[in-house]
Amino acid sequence: MNRLHQIGFSKLSSVEDSLKKIFSVIGLTSIIQINTKDALNHNVANNIKSIADVPYFDRSAMDGYAIKAEDTFGASINSPKYFKKIGKIEIDELSKITINSFETVKISTGAQIPDGANAVIKIEETEIKGNTIKIYNSIVPNANISKRGSDTKKGEIIIENGIQIKPEHIALLCSQGIQKINVRKKPNISIFSTGNELIDIENTREGRQIYDSNTPMISNLVRIYGGIVIEEKIIRDNKDLIKKELLDALNKSDIIIFSGGTSVGTRDYLPEIMNQIAKVLIHGVAMRPGAPILIATKNNKLIFCLPGTPVASYIGFLIFVGPSIKKKMNSNILDPREKCVAIINQDVPVSSMGYIHNLRVKLEFIKNSLVAIPIRLKGSSLISSLTNSDGIVEILPFQEGIKKGDNVIVKLHPK
Amino acid sequence: MNRLHQIGFSKLSSVEDSLKKIFSVIGLTSIIQINTKDALNHNVANNIKSIADVPYFDRSAMDGYAIKAEDTFGASINSPKYFKKIGKIEIDELSKITINSFETVKISTGAQIPDGANAVIKIEETEIKGNTIKIYNSIVPNANISKRGSDTKKGEIIIENGIQIKPEHIALLCSQGIQKINVRKKPNISIFSTGNELIDIENTREGRQIYDSNTPMISNLVRIYGGIVIEEKIIRDNKDLIKKELLDALNKSDIIIFSGGTSVGTRDYLPEIMNQIAKVLIHGVAMRPGAPILIATKNNKLIFCLPGTPVASYIGFLIFVGPSIKKKMNSNILDPREKCVAIINQDVPVSSMGYIHNLRVKLEFIKNSLVAIPIRLKGSSLISSLTNSDGIVEILPFQEGIKKGDNVIVKLHPK
Repeated sequence: MNRLHQIGFSKLSSVEDSLKKIFSVIGLTSIIQINTKDALNHNVANNIKSIADVPYFDRSAMDGYAIKAEDTFGASINSPKYFKKIGKIEIDELSKITINSFETVKISTGAQIPDGANAVIKIEETEIKGNTIKIYNSIVPNANISKRGSDTKKGEIIIENGIQIKPEHIALLCSQGIQKINVRKKPNISIFSTGNELIDIENTREGRQIYDSNTPMISNLVRIYGGIVIEEKIIRDNKDLIKKELLDALNKSDIIIFSGGTSVGTRDYLPEIMNQIAKVLIHGVAMRPGAPILIATKNNKLIFCLPGTPVASYIGFLIFVGPSIKKKMNSNILDPREKCVAIINQDVPVSSMGYIHNLRVKLEFIKNSLVAIPIRLKGSSLISSLTNSDGIVEILPFQEGIKKGDNVIVKLHPK
Repeated sequence: MNRLHQIGFSKLSSVEDSLKKIFSVIGLTSIIQINTKDALNHNVANNIKSIADVPYFDRSAMDGYAIKAEDTFGASINSPKYFKKIGKIEIDELSKITINSFETVKISTGAQIPDGANAVIKIEETEIKGNTIKIYNSIVPNANISKRGSDTKKGEIIIENGIQIKPEHIALLCSQGIQKINVRKKPNISIFSTGNELIDIENTREGRQIYDSNTPMISNLVRIYGGIVIEEKIIRDNKDLIKKELLDALNKSDIIIFSGGTSVGTRDYLPEIMNQIAKVLIHGVAMRPGAPILIATKNNKLIFCLPGTPVASYIGFLIFVGPSIKKKMNSNILDPREKCVAIINQDVPVSSMGYIHNLRVKLEFIKNSLVAIPIRLKGSSLISSLTNSDGIVEILPFQEGIKKGDNVIVKLHPK
């Protein structure tokens, strides 16, 4: 007797279709140039090509002795080979030495391989007496040499368009001397909670008031996803007030997030307002919790109206808002949650088909296996079901549930 | 013929013993009080207890009608039950209504359950004609009610000492009206690269110079791990200069990180300097890459001298520096890297036992399995082996390698 369709939601959209609709209207933020060293977590705006062969020259990968590898062939404990040390090369030195057969130079890790040499024998594998170096084993050509261009070759793509910069990318860019890169501007986000019952934690609650937990939760999710929170506010259940805030926010934000007031309750004004001011793309999504989500657009900006209950709001953010923030920055990973495979430790039946069920699970390592333990809580108001879990298993609309021992993909809570 | 022990490293320590030694000298940073809303990524400094039963009162979890559950018993399509609507309760309303048998009030999600009622029937499961509500199915007591205290009970621990705050923790704290929390101060970190060959990317390289990639990489790793970078600098290979910088840094830093100059090369001054100024805890760790790491302490401060090659430096950071930053903040997760189980797609033999080998792998989902593909690159100077991989598999000292098809634990690169 599920009559959700009949009393306000004309049709529930699938998560997949909803994402397609959203992504079809979303625009990219503008391109800005920033310092490579400040680029952590920014999404690059174009393919970045190597501007140099790195290493810039053949370098020693060890502290040792540069030699001709052929001269070591046949060396053994009983028949060592002897080399004459003719100099040394320090790491910053432009060497002019050329070595001949059975000559060697002492060389530091990172220093240039001298002409004539084609291998380095580690200092630990030699015996030294004065200028004579004794070697007991044969080594192959190119041993312990980092060849020019072995890390990056000039002209090759080293970082692809859309990648989110991590410390190792910064190292790679710096190794080339690339000082600045093009990235997508982080989108501006406005966040509103609606409800006469809501008060900010700075105040003291009275009567049936409750503290607003959605605004601070969502604004911190936005920060993790790389958006810039330009406004966060509680709005009373008043149509004119909500309209005014929406119009203001549309002038300065790329994305606007409401929570509360999206369903079919007497004070759920958002659907009416969105239909007046914007174009409603989606109202009602086939997922639990979080079905009564509404998504609208106006001038390529997106307006998300998430359910008021914290868990539904959280999950609505992860499924729709977060990926939209990433999409606006042209990120090549729209859902940045880490994904793991785990074994579910009990049967999880679902009561209603046709919905994606977002099952919260706790993870535990048992030997070399990762085990997912469902947090069986009813009600999407229980924030503790999030703080007590590590991630979410999505039970797909056509699945009748999952069986104990099944492999499941767990999407870890963002952090 | 590995003679590493004989020529400079008196004894290689195991990773485990090294961590124990480090953790035994490390102190905690001081406790500071911050706003809950600003607490993202901070580590809490004590167990946080609930100061209220949340929900504060029995609330409706649905838009619907509050009733006595017993009155619905026996209801069916052929034998509906009829209720008389005697009012409605909005979400912020302190209700004074009491309902009797076969009476009902309309109730919004989140509104107080009126006296006399013990269940809510969803609006979608009713038929309404004027003030008469028709119900076709029986519901159980407590259906669709969020009971007082079902999220958190006053006095129970809701966030444990050492937890790193995520958006859902902020929501939980706000739902209680907890405005401020105690967290550990983020440690101050100084970062130095040593080497005459190094130049900053702001400059143009000449001769055998190379651009410093370690300082920017390490400073961004520090940011991810929650430290505050107070200084980053390249130092020439000059004992007096290095000593001066070290002494300055000891005055203002909790942790000091050097890279380069730790091995047994001619210009590797750090071991000598550390022995003069501080107490060397570890010199040489049985791991690859990264063996020539040196860790010293002075006045409960830690000094890490990481190898100069970027990958060794990166891995040294992940294994030792990062966990030390976390430990100083009393974090309950010292190695914050996400861990996944994957199936390795090829044999990986190791050449030398006794070391932990840090194998870089790329991850791919193939159906519902996560597959780890080794990045087979020699040389710890190749930064591209980091940018091309997703994480690290640790092959333990007693393992002869890993076999195709084995389950492995992958520690994902931090981000």
